[in-house]
Amino acid sequence: MYAPTGVRTSTDFPIPDTMKAWVLGDPGELLLRDKPVPVPKKAEVLVRIDAVAICATDLEIIYHGPPALILGGMPHNKNFTPGHEYMGTVVALGPGVDDYWLNYGDVDKGHRANGFTTDGGFCEYQVNNINTLVAIPDAMSDEEATLVVTAGTAMYGLTELGGLVAGESVVVTGPGPIGLLGVAVAKALGAHPVILTGTRDNRLQIGRELGADHVINVRQDDAVAAVRRLNGSKGVDYVLECSGAPNAVNEAVRMVNRGGKVCLAAFPHEETPVDIAEIVRNNIYVYGIRGEGKSATHRAEAFMTQKRFDATKIHTHTFPLDDLPTAIRYAKDRVEDAIKVVVKARGVSAAHKVAAE
Amino acid sequence: MYAPTGVRTSTDFPIPDTMKAWVLGDPGELLLRDKPVPVPKKAEVLVRIDAVAICATDLEIIYHGPPALILGGMPHNKNFTPGHEYMGTVVALGPGVDDYWLNYGDVDKGHRANGFTTDGGFCEYQVNNINTLVAIPDAMSDEEATLVVTAGTAMYGLTELGGLVAGESVVVTGPGPIGLLGVAVAKALGAHPVILTGTRDNRLQIGRELGADHVINVRQDDAVAAVRRLNGSKGVDYVLECSGAPNAVNEAVRMVNRGGKVCLAAFPHEETPVDIAEIVRNNIYVYGIRGEGKSATHRAEAFMTQKRFDATKIHTHTFPLDDLPTAIRYAKDRVEDAIKVVVKARGVSAAHKVAAE
Amino acid sequence: MYAPTGVRTSTDFPIPDTMKAWVLGDPGELLLRDKPVPVPKKAEVLVRIDAVAICATDLEIIYHGPPALILGGMPHNKNFTPGHEYMGTVVALGPGVDDYWLNYGDVDKGHRANGFTTDGGFCEYQVNNINTLVAIPDAMSDEEATLVVTAGTAMYGLTELGGLVAGESVVVTGPGPIGLLGVAVAKALGAHPVILTGTRDNRLQIGRELGADHVINVRQDDAVAAVRRLNGSKGVDYVLECSGAPNAVNEAVRMVNRGGKVCLAAFPHEETPVDIAEIVRNNIYVYGIRGEGKSATHRAEAFMTQKRFDATKIHTHTFPLDDLPTAIRYAKDRVEDAIKVVVKARGVSAAHKVAAE
Amino acid sequence: MYAPTGVRTSTDFPIPDTMKAWVLGDPGELLLRDKPVPVPKKAEVLVRIDAVAICATDLEIIYHGPPALILGGMPHNKNFTPGHEYMGTVVALGPGVDDYWLNYGDVDKGHRANGFTTDGGFCEYQVNNINTLVAIPDAMSDEEATLVVTAGTAMYGLTELGGLVAGESVVVTGPGPIGLLGVAVAKALGAHPVILTGTRDNRLQIGRELGADHVINVRQDDAVAAVRRLNGSKGVDYVLECSGAPNAVNEAVRMVNRGGKVCLAAFPHEETPVDIAEIVRNNIYVYGIRGEGKSATHRAEAFMTQKRFDATKIHTHTFPLDDLPTAIRYAKDRVEDAIKVVVKARGVSAAHKVAAE
Repeated sequence: MYAPTGVRTSTDFPIPDTMKAWVLGDPGELLLRDKPVPVPKKAEVLVRIDAVAICATDLEIIYHGPPALILGGMPHNKNFTPGHEYMGTVVALGPGVDDYWLNYGDVDKGHRANGFTTDGGFCEYQVNNINTLVAIPDAMSDEEATLVVTAGTAMYGLTELGGLVAGESVVVTGPGPIGLLGVAVAKALGAHPVILTGTRDNRLQIGRELGADHVINVRQDDAVAAVRRLNGSKGVDYVLECSGAPNAVNEAVRMVNRGGKVCLAAFPHEETPVDIAEIVRNNIYVYGIRGEGKSATHRAEAFMTQKRFDATKIHTHTFPLDDLPTAIRYAKDRVEDAIKVVVKARGVSAAHKVAAE
Repeated sequence: MYAPTGVRTSTDFPIPDTMKAWVLGDPGELLLRDKPVPVPKKAEVLVRIDAVAICATDLEIIYHGPPALILGGMPHNKNFTPGHEYMGTVVALGPGVDDYWLNYGDVDKGHRANGFTTDGGFCEYQVNNINTLVAIPDAMSDEEATLVVTAGTAMYGLTELGGLVAGESVVVTGPGPIGLLGVAVAKALGAHPVILTGTRDNRLQIGRELGADHVINVRQDDAVAAVRRLNGSKGVDYVLECSGAPNAVNEAVRMVNRGGKVCLAAFPHEETPVDIAEIVRNNIYVYGIRGEGKSATHRAEAFMTQKRFDATKIHTHTFPLDDLPTAIRYAKDRVEDAIKVVVKARGVSAAHKVAAE
Repeated sequence: MYAPTGVRTSTDFPIPDTMKAWVLGDPGELLLRDKPVPVPKKAEVLVRIDAVAICATDLEIIYHGPPALILGGMPHNKNFTPGHEYMGTVVALGPGVDDYWLNYGDVDKGHRANGFTTDGGFCEYQVNNINTLVAIPDAMSDEEATLVVTAGTAMYGLTELGGLVAGESVVVTGPGPIGLLGVAVAKALGAHPVILTGTRDNRLQIGRELGADHVINVRQDDAVAAVRRLNGSKGVDYVLECSGAPNAVNEAVRMVNRGGKVCLAAFPHEETPVDIAEIVRNNIYVYGIRGEGKSATHRAEAFMTQKRFDATKIHTHTFPLDDLPTAIRYAKDRVEDAIKVVVKARGVSAAHKVAAE
Repeated sequence: MYAPTGVRTSTDFPIPDTMKAWVLGDPGELLLRDKPVPVPKKAEVLVRIDAVAICATDLEIIYHGPPALILGGMPHNKNFTPGHEYMGTVVALGPGVDDYWLNYGDVDKGHRANGFTTDGGFCEYQVNNINTLVAIPDAMSDEEATLVVTAGTAMYGLTELGGLVAGESVVVTGPGPIGLLGVAVAKALGAHPVILTGTRDNRLQIGRELGADHVINVRQDDAVAAVRRLNGSKGVDYVLECSGAPNAVNEAVRMVNRGGKVCLAAFPHEETPVDIAEIVRNNIYVYGIRGEGKSATHRAEAFMTQKRFDATKIHTHTFPLDDLPTAIRYAKDRVEDAIKVVVKARGVSAAHKVAAE
């Protein structure tokens, strides 16, 4: 019976002592294990995980481990539970947390930890500091709630560096999850025009539905030329680069106008040639984004709550938590052109809903 | 007799109708010509040019013309007078300008025009909008006053993006004029440590005199390893890249810590391979700087007036305006290891001193 | 026949040499006079004025003159033409202006000049620097286009100081033109909740239609208590003060949470007691806004073009330019509860539409 | 014997189990008691307190308790240990803290807690999260180290809102500790001129020694008129208000130029009349500062380490910790014109020196 000292639980949500949790085995291998349900400390709560979305970063961690690509130096951790885009129900409160008042701060949280350096969400329960959770209104579905982090990343990229985007022109390169929600967020912020580039017509079509004024299939058109033609021969104000293509940075630099900004939310795995002179001559800022700040996830959630865009358009598949390996395969191999794959635990959250930031 | 309608002149400064002006001939060729003394319009003043420093950009314009490297598309202009780092004496006031109140605004001027798209300072007189001039105290020498733009560029690079530099660690790569004054400005702003990299020991020595806590001769040491060793195995907060070396961006990206900033004030002439993944993973901002803003020149001038550093340490040679071609040759070929070469007109300014921004 | 040297006109828009212009007589008196049609200089265009809205500042200038309340020291100018919220058709181009390329800059323009220190829009033609104009799409009505400045002021107030408003709570005090459009802009930016306070139910109702989640009639409710009750006993993030009531600042300071921001867009005519200690203890920022910056008018226009809100809900009356004194009376005395009163010239703009910023 | 589980101690610094600590009795009463030495948790360290400065806020807490003036609603706490400007030696490390790597973050810490809501420094030992400590170089004296918070507050006030102060004009009103170090910091940042106002000539003289270009004794001169005369009839860019005088805000608003900024670091105890219209008409920002951010304490410490100014000029008296009541009396009643009073414990720190932020 789960009853740690100093933790307040409710009879509405009986909590077991142990839970099912997926853990890393060898690279690419996930094993279902029992783990103790973790205990919230001061300023923390216990979240019953109701849904988790799979992110490209999860795939990196599962297949390559943190060291190679993400965190620079950590060993592959055989007992680690990945998964960071989770949501669920607050079922227990650590010492000092008032259930009527989850006092969400406005702190720059830097790099997210759960699912990266500490256990994440591919399991039944997880603890979070209350500053790393976003409150979700009851009316938002669990699946949609798993997408607030993705929308928050796009929001952060577009508004970092003082971006006040209304009336500005934005190109999003690459119609993956961040790119597609980048289109939606840019549009919600009042950007015009919003141009999406990609190689798959069905994804470009989803981009249109999320608000893209123009789409460019780069298999048929030269992206830089097409952008300049569509924007009245001027460069655009922002490029949100989400493709990771080897030529993407150079093309982005040529798409923006003098003083333009290029936000990198993806990257190629090899060094790629870049025209540094163009960056200097045109006063261009190129910034990599990881982590999150300036309440971007909260701002994205506010837009979603207000139904400014329908983030669920990028949600293509759902599997039960027990089938995580299948879900991972769909996400990794883009089976049936999967975009965002969600795994659902048994529970459906109905109140005290939160999403991990 | 110079007496345009609406322009106020003073008997203290008799102004001729025509002046000597150097103009572009064929690429690399400068010709001395007569031009009419220009007439200040509304919000403009006439500056008698007393000293001009030669900048790498001037050399580009003289040898390659604006189109190739600087301004993207302008034809080589055969009658154009280059030179933008000039200072002198205000000798006439256009309509609406009050001589007791040069109302310097706090406007972001974007790209400087005189010497780039409009005639510059390799001549005897030039007009400037009052918003493009910085007042210089009487006690500052003419030669030092020509250096405020160079110091202002370094200041802009270091303080753009909200940089509050006191106590932060800074690497300056490349001991050219901007790099050396970058060291001085970083130190004046309270940075610590300030590390300078380069290949010439005599220039690194000047860097030490301007405040570098450490210098690294990259012919003898691996720059990235040396920086990390000097800064307690941590990356630094800022890199001000002034070398234009092909490997400079990649090295800078590896010198900074997570969230670090790389300011590009120089560039290689070819595309160079860049590790984009490192930029994204470490949340690094890379920003090209041209033009100027946030009153950076004025702030640099304030530091120089307060004698926080001795900018004249980078001033190595002076020639009379008539010998501009010799001065150009010294600057271009680094004859006698010239760093900053200044040409002096006959006049010495004693009051109403200004420098072009 | 209007044909100034260096100015390009079109046969589509015949321009007379003289025009009708309202000018200041004694305080409160407006006289219709003939003035020469002004001539655009470099970087300027001639705008045929098609519609002008009346602003509270215009009333101050007309009844009290600039010195007393607005510009601190200028004499009442008997030949001056007020009016700064005008829009119209670009009918002639000054030297250097390309008709296909009105190169709108992103310059912080500081205090607007036309209608304040230089002649304004209560006449048939006016010149503007192209940087002081916002392009208006053909489909927007002339009346609506006169409102972009008012919406821009609200936008500026809400986004100055780095305000990223989505998901933040906003109170607007005072349902005048800026207050009502402040509600609309806050809502478009994603604020939640948006609370409007005022004394007139019909105006509060317009506020509801423009997006207010809650309204408070301060004749019936204590505003501070009601705000705290509506926002779950927390203070709000922003107050946009548009009432000018003597107790408004103190109440605003008590409505915001720690670190909250109070933007003052109106002011009482007398000194009023303020609880400075509350400002310091709670880290509150109080900022007066005049002028405009950060492209706020352009951003507001983008929202209006995208039909995020219907600004015309605050437009209550239209009079012909010849009836300006009647229009002024309606605006000043709030005849028939006038909110925004517009005067229309004969023309209706159909292309090359612009609004003065 | 102090040996809590998971905490690493060193044989160099034997730690007792209990310590002497001053605690609040009735308002104005301090009692010396035994308390257990606190235990550092994760990310915390134990600091042996070597010196503490007394701040006006400490006096408020001791004489009036937190509720009335500082924290809005907390009861007077009879067992509470005040004191927040302390420094000392790191003598034990909580779990997860690496002694060679105190990983100081760059986090905005908001309101400081120790000495406000949690026990402070008028005792022998205290725990701190490592993010709330600033490393102090061995060469800085303990007394000087207690002043970094005061200098940090001045730094924060001057650089909040994007202040890049070099060459800007600053008035500091009130030569108390923050005001005097405000003069020093403004000067170190390159402000010019820096003008100090006050009523006591000896304090104004200290201001001169810390860098004030001009001082104004407001008993002899009209402060607003004197400022405008000294700054060439222009208003200044910043006022740092440290006097708390009833007319201070109104005077500050009249001292700054259009767009000027008034930072409030003190406040009168009564509501005072303010000319709101002047704030709005001149686009003035008035901001209260509490707490700290943007690494301001670290930046101030960097300036002090670099000997940009001698903060110890404001340190007038030292008493042993046992004589705290005498020290408090000197600070409160300004006995012998006390400015900053420091209490010293027995220890003198020699290494692992830190100051509480």
